[in-house]
Amino acid sequence: MKNILAGIDIGGTKIAIATATPDGELLDKRFLPTQTHLGPEAVFENMCRAVVEMLGDDADKLAAIGVGSPAPIDVEKGLILSPSNLQDWDRFPIVDLLNERFDVPVVLDNDANAAALGEFMFGAGRGCRDVLYVTVSTGIGGGIIINGEIYHGVSTGAGEIGHTVVRPDDGILCNCGLRGCLESICAGVHIARRTKERLAAGESSVIRDMLSDIEDVTAETVVEAVRQNDRLATEIWDETCRYLAIGIGNAVTLLAPEIVIVGGGISMAGELLMEPLRRLVPRCVSMIPPEKIRIRRAELGAESGLHGAVAIARKAYSGSHLMYAV
Amino acid sequence: MKNILAGIDIGGTKIAIATATPDGELLDKRFLPTQTHLGPEAVFENMCRAVVEMLGDDADKLAAIGVGSPAPIDVEKGLILSPSNLQDWDRFPIVDLLNERFDVPVVLDNDANAAALGEFMFGAGRGCRDVLYVTVSTGIGGGIIINGEIYHGVSTGAGEIGHTVVRPDDGILCNCGLRGCLESICAGVHIARRTKERLAAGESSVIRDMLSDIEDVTAETVVEAVRQNDRLATEIWDETCRYLAIGIGNAVTLLAPEIVIVGGGISMAGELLMEPLRRLVPRCVSMIPPEKIRIRRAELGAESGLHGAVAIARKAYSGSHLMYAV
Repeated sequence: MKNILAGIDIGGTKIAIATATPDGELLDKRFLPTQTHLGPEAVFENMCRAVVEMLGDDADKLAAIGVGSPAPIDVEKGLILSPSNLQDWDRFPIVDLLNERFDVPVVLDNDANAAALGEFMFGAGRGCRDVLYVTVSTGIGGGIIINGEIYHGVSTGAGEIGHTVVRPDDGILCNCGLRGCLESICAGVHIARRTKERLAAGESSVIRDMLSDIEDVTAETVVEAVRQNDRLATEIWDETCRYLAIGIGNAVTLLAPEIVIVGGGISMAGELLMEPLRRLVPRCVSMIPPEKIRIRRAELGAESGLHGAVAIARKAYSGSHLMYAV
Repeated sequence: MKNILAGIDIGGTKIAIATATPDGELLDKRFLPTQTHLGPEAVFENMCRAVVEMLGDDADKLAAIGVGSPAPIDVEKGLILSPSNLQDWDRFPIVDLLNERFDVPVVLDNDANAAALGEFMFGAGRGCRDVLYVTVSTGIGGGIIINGEIYHGVSTGAGEIGHTVVRPDDGILCNCGLRGCLESICAGVHIARRTKERLAAGESSVIRDMLSDIEDVTAETVVEAVRQNDRLATEIWDETCRYLAIGIGNAVTLLAPEIVIVGGGISMAGELLMEPLRRLVPRCVSMIPPEKIRIRRAELGAESGLHGAVAIARKAYSGSHLMYAV
C-alpha cells in the first residue's frame, strides 16, 4: 500500500526533506546544505539519495512527492526557471526527473504557496477555507488559499503582496523595478538598509555598541535594539509595522480572507510584530468589521514550507490537485 | 416548464428589471424610478408589479430571481441592510419577500458583484475563469470572480478596491474613515472635487466657459474639457489615471486575474480612460508579464448590473449558487 508522502522544500542555503503519513504527520525529516555551486544535477542527486535513505525498506510505499521552490517556476510544466538564489538553475525539469526516478505523482509549487498550503492544512489556518499567507523575510512574499486550494492566477502570479505599491510618490526603487513596493520598505534587507542609512547619517543608537561595523546590521539587530528600547530602532520598527499594516490591509480589503497568517524570519520577532499588526491592520481596512479580521503568526514557524511540500504531495496523492505528472 | 429568469438591479435612482431565457438572453426590460421617499414596502410593490406585468401569461414559467443591490447587504440572510442611497431601508428582507410572492429561488448580491458576474457570463469576461471587475463611478467598487463564482470573502467584503489605500501619507480623508483610498482620489465626485479646488484657487480652464457656476463641475465636465485639451482638466485626468493604475496594479499583483474589466459611469469616457490604463497598469505590476495583463472596458455598459442580476438568477436556477431561499 502506497501511504508515505514526501515533501521537499528547496531553499537557497538548505533543502528540507520530510516523509509523512497521508494525514501529514511527519515520519522523518532531514536538512541538506543546498550547495548550489555543485550545479542542479548534483543537488538533485543529493536530494534523491536523501529521500531513498529516509524511505529505507518502505521505498515501495511512496505515494507522491510535493516540492516547494523559490520563484520563478512553471507550475504546469514542472520547471524551476531561474531563481536568483539557485544559481545556474534554468528551466530545471524537477517534476519530470523526480517522476522518472520514483514513479509517483510529483507536484511543484513556489515556496510561498507551499507555506500557505502548509499553514492552511496543518498550521494556523486549519479549519479555514480562504487564507492569506504573508511571509516577511529577506523579501516579502505571499500565498492565497481560496476554497481550500492554492489560488495561482495567471502566470502563477497571484499573492505577490511584497510588490504591491504602498508608497508610490516618494518610495525607493525596488529590485523589481517599481517604486514604493511593500518589500522595498519592510523586507529584512530593507529594515537593515533603512537603519544603516540613519546610522551613517550620525544618529545615536545602542546598535553602535552592539556591532563593531554598522554594515553588519540585520533586521535581527534592529529587533534586538527595539527590545532594548532604542529610539532609532523603535522608529524604524514602527514605520515597518505601519507599512506592513497598509499592505496587508489593502490585501484584506480586496480578498476579505478568513485569516491572515504571517510567517517568515521577521515573524520570529513574535509579539513585537504581531501586536502592532493586530492593532494597525484593522485601522487600514474600512469595509470589514474589525472583529472579522484575524491575524495570526504562522504556527509551523521555519517549517511552514516543509509541511507545505507535504501538503502539496497530499493534494497530488488524493488527486484533487490539477497539475501533476504521473 | 420553468424557463424564465428575472433580474432586478436596484439603484438609488432607478430600478432595472429584466426577464431572460436560461441562456441570459433578455426577453424584456423595464426601468422604474426608485422613489425611495415612498419607503421600501411601496418600492417593493412597484417592483413586483413590474415583474408580474412583464411575465404576463408566462407567470408560471418564472424559474428564479436574481437581485443586485447597493451595499451593505447580508447575502446569507438575504437582507438589504442600510445602503446610503436607499434611505429608510434597514435590514429589508427582500429575498424572503420575493420568495413568498413568486415561490421561486431568489438570490441577492451586491451591485458590484452582480456586475462582475454579468460581465463574466455575458460580457467582456466570457470564456475567462478568474476576473476582476472594477466600477469607476460616483464611488469605486469591485467584484471578484474566481473559478467562475463570485468570491465573497468574510462579511461579503471582498473586492472593495475603492478602499485600498494608494496614498497613505498625504491622501485626503475618505468617507470610509481611511486616508488616501483610491476612491478618495479617482471616484467621480472626487475628480470633480479636485477640479473645483483648483478652479477655486484661480487656475484658468475652459471649464469656466462651459459652466456658469464651478460648483456644477462633474467628472463628465472634466472629461469634456480633456477632449478640448484643457490643461487643468488634463492634469486632473492624468493624476486620476495614474492612481487608478496603481490601485488596479496592486489588485493585479495580488490576484493575477485573467482579465480586468472596467465599468461604471467614468468608463463611458472610453479610450480616454482605457488607453492610459492599458499603458500604465502593466507599469505598476512587476511580477506578471505585461502581455498577460488584459484590461478591457465593460461590454454591457450601464447594464452590467442588470445582466448580472439575470446571471445571479441563472446561478440560483442551476442550483450552483450556495445561498438562496426556496
